Amino acid sequence: MAGNTFGQVFKVTTWGESHGKALGVIIDGCPPNLPLEADDVQLDLDRRKPKGSPTSTPRREPDRVELLSGTFQGMTTGTPISLLIHNKDVDSRTYEKMKDIFRPGHGDFTYQKKYGIRDYRGGGRASGRETAARVAAGAIARKVLDKEDILVKAYTLELAGIRVKQLDLDVIDKNPFLVPDMDAANHMQKRIKEIKKSGDSAGGIVEVLVQGCPAGLGEPVFDKLDADLAKALMSIGAVKAVEIGVGLEAARLLGSECNDEITPQGFATNRSGGILAGISNGDDIVLRAAVKPIPSIEKEQRTVDINMKPTTLSVKGRHDISAIPRIVPVCEAMVRLVIVDHLLRQRAIE
Amino acid sequence: MAGNTFGQVFKVTTWGESHGKALGVIIDGCPPNLPLEADDVQLDLDRRKPKGSPTSTPRREPDRVELLSGTFQGMTTGTPISLLIHNKDVDSRTYEKMKDIFRPGHGDFTYQKKYGIRDYRGGGRASGRETAARVAAGAIARKVLDKEDILVKAYTLELAGIRVKQLDLDVIDKNPFLVPDMDAANHMQKRIKEIKKSGDSAGGIVEVLVQGCPAGLGEPVFDKLDADLAKALMSIGAVKAVEIGVGLEAARLLGSECNDEITPQGFATNRSGGILAGISNGDDIVLRAAVKPIPSIEKEQRTVDINMKPTTLSVKGRHDISAIPRIVPVCEAMVRLVIVDHLLRQRAIE
Amino acid sequence: MAGNTFGQVFKVTTWGESHGKALGVIIDGCPPNLPLEADDVQLDLDRRKPKGSPTSTPRREPDRVELLSGTFQGMTTGTPISLLIHNKDVDSRTYEKMKDIFRPGHGDFTYQKKYGIRDYRGGGRASGRETAARVAAGAIARKVLDKEDILVKAYTLELAGIRVKQLDLDVIDKNPFLVPDMDAANHMQKRIKEIKKSGDSAGGIVEVLVQGCPAGLGEPVFDKLDADLAKALMSIGAVKAVEIGVGLEAARLLGSECNDEITPQGFATNRSGGILAGISNGDDIVLRAAVKPIPSIEKEQRTVDINMKPTTLSVKGRHDISAIPRIVPVCEAMVRLVIVDHLLRQRAIE
Amino acid sequence: MAGNTFGQVFKVTTWGESHGKALGVIIDGCPPNLPLEADDVQLDLDRRKPKGSPTSTPRREPDRVELLSGTFQGMTTGTPISLLIHNKDVDSRTYEKMKDIFRPGHGDFTYQKKYGIRDYRGGGRASGRETAARVAAGAIARKVLDKEDILVKAYTLELAGIRVKQLDLDVIDKNPFLVPDMDAANHMQKRIKEIKKSGDSAGGIVEVLVQGCPAGLGEPVFDKLDADLAKALMSIGAVKAVEIGVGLEAARLLGSECNDEITPQGFATNRSGGILAGISNGDDIVLRAAVKPIPSIEKEQRTVDINMKPTTLSVKGRHDISAIPRIVPVCEAMVRLVIVDHLLRQRAIE
Repeated sequence: MAGNTFGQVFKVTTWGESHGKALGVIIDGCPPNLPLEADDVQLDLDRRKPKGSPTSTPRREPDRVELLSGTFQGMTTGTPISLLIHNKDVDSRTYEKMKDIFRPGHGDFTYQKKYGIRDYRGGGRASGRETAARVAAGAIARKVLDKEDILVKAYTLELAGIRVKQLDLDVIDKNPFLVPDMDAANHMQKRIKEIKKSGDSAGGIVEVLVQGCPAGLGEPVFDKLDADLAKALMSIGAVKAVEIGVGLEAARLLGSECNDEITPQGFATNRSGGILAGISNGDDIVLRAAVKPIPSIEKEQRTVDINMKPTTLSVKGRHDISAIPRIVPVCEAMVRLVIVDHLLRQRAIE
Repeated sequence: MAGNTFGQVFKVTTWGESHGKALGVIIDGCPPNLPLEADDVQLDLDRRKPKGSPTSTPRREPDRVELLSGTFQGMTTGTPISLLIHNKDVDSRTYEKMKDIFRPGHGDFTYQKKYGIRDYRGGGRASGRETAARVAAGAIARKVLDKEDILVKAYTLELAGIRVKQLDLDVIDKNPFLVPDMDAANHMQKRIKEIKKSGDSAGGIVEVLVQGCPAGLGEPVFDKLDADLAKALMSIGAVKAVEIGVGLEAARLLGSECNDEITPQGFATNRSGGILAGISNGDDIVLRAAVKPIPSIEKEQRTVDINMKPTTLSVKGRHDISAIPRIVPVCEAMVRLVIVDHLLRQRAIE
Repeated sequence: MAGNTFGQVFKVTTWGESHGKALGVIIDGCPPNLPLEADDVQLDLDRRKPKGSPTSTPRREPDRVELLSGTFQGMTTGTPISLLIHNKDVDSRTYEKMKDIFRPGHGDFTYQKKYGIRDYRGGGRASGRETAARVAAGAIARKVLDKEDILVKAYTLELAGIRVKQLDLDVIDKNPFLVPDMDAANHMQKRIKEIKKSGDSAGGIVEVLVQGCPAGLGEPVFDKLDADLAKALMSIGAVKAVEIGVGLEAARLLGSECNDEITPQGFATNRSGGILAGISNGDDIVLRAAVKPIPSIEKEQRTVDINMKPTTLSVKGRHDISAIPRIVPVCEAMVRLVIVDHLLRQRAIE
Repeated sequence: MAGNTFGQVFKVTTWGESHGKALGVIIDGCPPNLPLEADDVQLDLDRRKPKGSPTSTPRREPDRVELLSGTFQGMTTGTPISLLIHNKDVDSRTYEKMKDIFRPGHGDFTYQKKYGIRDYRGGGRASGRETAARVAAGAIARKVLDKEDILVKAYTLELAGIRVKQLDLDVIDKNPFLVPDMDAANHMQKRIKEIKKSGDSAGGIVEVLVQGCPAGLGEPVFDKLDADLAKALMSIGAVKAVEIGVGLEAARLLGSECNDEITPQGFATNRSGGILAGISNGDDIVLRAAVKPIPSIEKEQRTVDINMKPTTLSVKGRHDISAIPRIVPVCEAMVRLVIVDHLLRQRAIE
């Protein structure tokens, strides 16, 4: 009801604010007898840490995750898995200045309207930092998928208007933007520097690829696999559009251009993005999320304070230029959660 | 779990196959003391009926809905509302020919893989006919929204490559494509005729506008208002992409171009589409769904039969060229369901 | 949320009022490929019909159930199963007299307080008639249990103070009270006649036995198998207590008298009622529900009208003396629903 | 699905094993703007700590609870509240001896059957220690109830066969058994000493009283208030029976003895226990739970090891003789959770 839980069988509940004592996640419904150590989760969290690139601020130590329950002698037991990350003692004084100001493009205004109270430090619950808990949960989901040889891979398809020209999954982790194209990565680096200099920020597109997903996952009518995937990606703060397969382009194609013919060897094309009538067809699942630019910019913007009096805001200092590199692992985690959940749901009726 | 229920407080469960005896919907969680007659629902269903346009087949009588429970003396009582529509006795023999063939772009293949059995007559549960039950539920949701002066309006934004040039909500119901632009409607009519002649089909884009939605609806993290809206629209069979506000375009804008500045009079622009950090901000909510062309076409397509032996398929006879006009009321219904559900959810914590 | 749905995987939603047009049930999450005809359900409904015994009123024709969706060529397809029972045209005028009176022991007062409106005809949604829908759902559950050789059997253990002295499951359906002891049945018959003559009504105890349930069903902490069974039985209108195994007696036993020792051949005793730490242990599951007397009695009772003005009520005419015989199949159905739901839940993590 | 979450609006998820690093609870759906400090929760946890009585073992320091999220400047914010209790470094070596033995009356056997793996140290997830998390959640629920002037009070009604003779709520916290009758408490103390000496253990009955609950809480059919209360209490490990109002006795009463007549001043009696047709009637809610004796006893019992080979077990050392005093606050917490959840559910439809 209050929206902090995702999934029906593989149930993930995140908690915690950006500048609170800690944040974490409970995974309830993980099958027993899977090998699991805190380090398995740490691996995914580390990937999320800043890459020393111009998109993101140089930050201190990586987050250390604690595994507090749900395993015994290195194996899952079927009971809830609790993961916790302590927040460093952060100086929240810088936020005091902004406590009465609604930052454009952020949730300050809407949280205040909804609850009549908000933890204004670092965005509180609406902070991108919450997604660390999702990435941690995604690491547990990976354990389930590994056993089934299902691979979920996310990468940057476009950043600041520059789109990749090739898809080399091997280079994704070799550049700060998680781009499958080193040339594109270099162009992005330059473009990002220019945007930073102009006091502005940039958006982009993340693509997620699922390989090895069996046919038959997804539930009719409302819990279609693509419906749940769309919700999963749209639940990430900065995402403004989600596409499956040919996506938006489907609106402009003819039927004969959009259908995937079927041959004894399988589908001749994959315009559907691996999902037909809401159910996986055994082909690769391909989907994309459009990410808006980070709203905190140096350029001065008009806004109002908590009493609706006009003021202006210019966010100075070191901050991210694009959420893209941080969002890639989050998209990957969310898609994993959906696939695992539907995998387990399917077992119940078999 | 099995995916035929939508919503958490205003809970909608649809049932029924295209060529079964009947189809229907249960609405559980509707507030009591709202005036409700079967005719209120019939009104919405009639809007969904074919318009005698070249996009759709001339069909018989409109569906008659029966209101079987949940009201007393013309008022809702707070108990489950059951709505039922009997299927006409349809000659299913034409489907016998196709019972062993997987139609490209349809759910035949995936349903068979998922369940090992399927009602192949008219698409069974995967038929667009199921959406009649959603439209019926949407009519009940309208009753709740009316009381709060919230208006949800859907219309065709683009069809077969032709986009509207103006937004005149008054003319939507005056043309067969539910387009807010009579000129565009005329162009669409011509283009659709050509496509029909060529034995092909066309897609398009539906836009949904919510006026009067109060700030504060939507739940943090996973059940963001936009996440639930994305799921709602993506759960409609033919939808391949969903956008909120500037949507996909957000990926190419700078932060200064994408943020909505705030003034004492409200938001200066509405690029966000009325939702910030997953919570409504009081502005109009604007979202779009990209709809793929109808997969049943006269042009011959390669496919396989149930034994994976190659064959071809050409769908002859009268059939729709585009799902768009039928999907517009479904999009409207689904958005209503989301808004009502979040409206009631918000009350629980106030 | 609104409470008309039971189960998480095998999801049952009932709808309908006592004197509305119809009542029914949707079963969502039934596995595919089970043989199912309307007659399978009718069988269970017929068992629920009055037995011409002094506990219940002679009533007309048995209810006829319609199977509207979810099967194809006599097999379940995995899509929602919709079952519907039309209400006969009942003369509701007799209820007009009582429309402003709150009957003691009934839900009139509380429904009015909760909703500010109520269908007062025959108890509306609170009528025992609603349980016909549960029995219908229980018939579908039986199909799943049959495949696993799990047998659920309910019977009257006590009625009007007379307790059975032997447990002969074969005679249950050979007497009007569904008692596994013909002698006890005869005594009950006499006692019930006396109570009827005195213008009063009687309660009793129903016992439910589950044979063949595998070890391992039930979920830790909140969804323990016994917790869900307790809820299932307590959700039946007239039930005021639920016991598992030794039940209430457990409070007065010593640990050495209450534990079941374990031997290589299995548990030496079954005081636990087949459930340990909320999980089935492979032994028979045994539970009991205490049923209060029917509140509608001829003896005059004090009550108030809708304006809280004092009045009296004496319910004349033919009516049931005890709910027991009607409740036995409902208890059986509810226990089946719980067992099937946990059976399918367990599969998801295996 | 995996059963570690309770409630629909006020959603409580517990996690943690007896001898793991920590245990805790997430409360999602708590209304904002309630004053809340860790000390509010500590108060309830302290009440649960051993009382130096012969029923329970002398134990070290009380548990210290940490409040990790969901509040800001001492007020709830509407976001998930995370509470954590670190487990002391306990010497688990004593459990090594029992790791291959199924203790009679415990969950060892069923957890092993269900998951094929179990944390055998101190009962793992099935340990009574898990209920500390429930008591912590109950403290948050108290904050909501306080605002509505609803009081939930649990106490021991019977222990080791000795039943209270008077109901003096003021003395409950003045004796180690949480009994509302000092005389009875003294008798219990003696009886418990004798049972301890004999190497055995004792059960009892807990009663819960809810004062000030408004009429109208509870949902028709499956989520009746009494059904949810029954589940809540039966979900506590040692509970074997639950009664509402007259409870089991209802089976033996006549209708005229069981009904509560209604007068302009309210209900003349309260045999219903404050709930009619599953909805609160404004009267006190009264319910009882029968608690079995603690299964770990010094008396030798037959059992088997993990290979089903016969062995015997005698649990030596300091351990509790009855779970009753520890279970009283847990019953109180669980009833609070149910009342708060239904209170918030009711708001959604008003």
